Amino acid sequence: MKKYIIVQKYGGSSVANIARIKAVAKRVVAAKNSRNHVVVVVSALGDTTDDLEALAFNLSRTPPDREMDMLMSTGEQISCALLAIAVKEMGHDAISFTGPQVGIQTDKTHTRARIETISGHRIRKALAQDKIVIVAGYQGVTDEDEITTLGRGGSDLTAVALAQALKAKVCEIYTDVNGIYTADPRLVKEARKIKVITFDEMLEMASLGAQVMQARSIEVAKRFNISLHVRSSFSKEEGTMIVKKNEKLEDVAVRGVTCSKSDAKITICAVPDRTGIAAKIFTEISKVGVSVDTIVQNVSHTKQTDISFTVPKSSLPKALQAAKAAAREIHAGDVLYDKNIARISIVGSGMRSHHGIAARMFQALAENKINIEMIATSEISVSCIISQRHAEKAVRSLHEKFELEKVE
Amino acid sequence: MKKYIIVQKYGGSSVANIARIKAVAKRVVAAKNSRNHVVVVVSALGDTTDDLEALAFNLSRTPPDREMDMLMSTGEQISCALLAIAVKEMGHDAISFTGPQVGIQTDKTHTRARIETISGHRIRKALAQDKIVIVAGYQGVTDEDEITTLGRGGSDLTAVALAQALKAKVCEIYTDVNGIYTADPRLVKEARKIKVITFDEMLEMASLGAQVMQARSIEVAKRFNISLHVRSSFSKEEGTMIVKKNEKLEDVAVRGVTCSKSDAKITICAVPDRTGIAAKIFTEISKVGVSVDTIVQNVSHTKQTDISFTVPKSSLPKALQAAKAAAREIHAGDVLYDKNIARISIVGSGMRSHHGIAARMFQALAENKINIEMIATSEISVSCIISQRHAEKAVRSLHEKFELEKVE
Repeated sequence: MKKYIIVQKYGGSSVANIARIKAVAKRVVAAKNSRNHVVVVVSALGDTTDDLEALAFNLSRTPPDREMDMLMSTGEQISCALLAIAVKEMGHDAISFTGPQVGIQTDKTHTRARIETISGHRIRKALAQDKIVIVAGYQGVTDEDEITTLGRGGSDLTAVALAQALKAKVCEIYTDVNGIYTADPRLVKEARKIKVITFDEMLEMASLGAQVMQARSIEVAKRFNISLHVRSSFSKEEGTMIVKKNEKLEDVAVRGVTCSKSDAKITICAVPDRTGIAAKIFTEISKVGVSVDTIVQNVSHTKQTDISFTVPKSSLPKALQAAKAAAREIHAGDVLYDKNIARISIVGSGMRSHHGIAARMFQALAENKINIEMIATSEISVSCIISQRHAEKAVRSLHEKFELEKVE
Repeated sequence: MKKYIIVQKYGGSSVANIARIKAVAKRVVAAKNSRNHVVVVVSALGDTTDDLEALAFNLSRTPPDREMDMLMSTGEQISCALLAIAVKEMGHDAISFTGPQVGIQTDKTHTRARIETISGHRIRKALAQDKIVIVAGYQGVTDEDEITTLGRGGSDLTAVALAQALKAKVCEIYTDVNGIYTADPRLVKEARKIKVITFDEMLEMASLGAQVMQARSIEVAKRFNISLHVRSSFSKEEGTMIVKKNEKLEDVAVRGVTCSKSDAKITICAVPDRTGIAAKIFTEISKVGVSVDTIVQNVSHTKQTDISFTVPKSSLPKALQAAKAAAREIHAGDVLYDKNIARISIVGSGMRSHHGIAARMFQALAENKINIEMIATSEISVSCIISQRHAEKAVRSLHEKFELEKVE
């Protein structure tokens, strides 16, 4: 009987303490007992990453990236060794490996390296010996034997890349939530777990505020068509499948509603309406390393227009400085900003075939007397920037308008 | 001007917190500024080793050695990365390496591996680039890319082995004491720091209770004639030089007095005085993995004798069980034990040429009404097993008898 390879990835909260490590060990052994080969990827224990980072930043405000990778990679090495000990204690053979040991070869970009190749021959050998293989997530090694880390969400990336390299049947991402919801259940009590979602929808939701997975890992999974199963390590309930096609999916217009409060809005007033002016402004801002999101420029009836755009709140001071410099140079007016905004978005592949979705969104907001400050659309999403104080009401009204509480 | 290579090793207490790591960084940079190449070996931060061990033993009473090495080796990786960050923050170029990265090749004996070879080519390359090199102590790698650790005192061993491989001028062992003393300064207020001591004397003192360095590292230093300088990381004071010959040394009879309370005494009474009986007893005891130290058997005037021997307190239960079994088998009498003993020793190469040293020791103890239970001698030491309650008095009286408080 052919055995399938299952890759399971457990996040930091899933291995935060001894009891949870034991629970994960049980789950891993159960998967193995269902006649599968199991490859486990683990993140660092609970707060380890933060603790290590704090040590480094106590020594330097700008610790060198190479040394940060030496430091931070220990977190995952600790958790994979502990999980191997826990699994062996249950009487099952297990072996832990660092990223370098299983040949997760990356480029030289310390702290946010890209995986280039995975040899994985030690994993295949251990699986052939019927061992449970436990791999330290988030880390790799350059061709010069330097330790690298993959940046935020790096352990997810390790799991997806291993699933691809090993031709795994499925890649399970264990986290502290039950899956992807139609909206944040803390905001909308009717929010429902989504059974199946496409990579594109998930990517859109991740970039618009859903925090379950980083976009990078989903992109890699999409590229290699690795189905992901996002589920909770604290329950046996099925989670959310992230898949390529939506053949299993009911053709709904809207899959979910997201809300992000991480951006601020900048408005440059009275911008002379001349060719190349926008280019001038956004070149200045990109020079200081700020990534701009939604940009709105109205058609002008005079020779002036207002240009608004959003930036991450953390980049606001830098962005404002650059925007003011640009405004002076192009003889524009005042530069205003607003930190109290929220981005409310609806996401769904069905938008491609359904019409009037955006209109229904604006209607719902209007019915609730919520003013829309900016609008942005993509092929499968519509986002509105509104005042932050209306955020929760907006999410609830949209969830209701699109009847997301109804069973798939 | 030719640059010398200095190897410095800092113990766990020397890098126990951020302030101490910064202090070590300053010391390392000062050594570099004296036109030397500096290679630093660090132990794990303060309590890290204990913390990691506690995690493992919470998961299993017998965690597998291989996984313990994966786990424990992270401690030194953390401290070497942090020290590199601290040195770079001072504006000096530094680079940290794990044991595997610098090619510290060991055998496959996990948790107490032996170093086989050191390639060290990455160290030489980094030194040629005028970098301060910081190496994680205590760890190595097998020819199958498995991470190993070197056991207790492993970081000292890394330092000594690197000093040998790199032909270093000196190997400095930084610890939390100022050097080796004529006796434990907590017991004898007149105790004096020893300026120079031979490898043989140091080995004898280490095995008889002086806890500054493990015997293993001293043995390696002796074999390759690497002079060691044991000194405090908290002061600029010179410490104790450990060297091959004693040409610099005044020819004193006794270099120091040591005291160890880590052993227990077992006595098998009424042992039939026949050939092969002792062999029988100690074969039984070695079978249970207990190492016996001092053995005393008196000449018997009857056909029976008592045999006493010491074992580490931690092995007492196992040793007792084996001794009782042996006693039954050979038809001996009772098996007694005493945990309240102390081993008091005097150590000095001068014993080779001075006579009457042992007699003076017994005299001093007799003058203080201290009963001697067992005696053992080596070429450069005399040890007496006495009751533990007299230990401090014995050390003080011997320190005085041999005038160890006098300047070298």
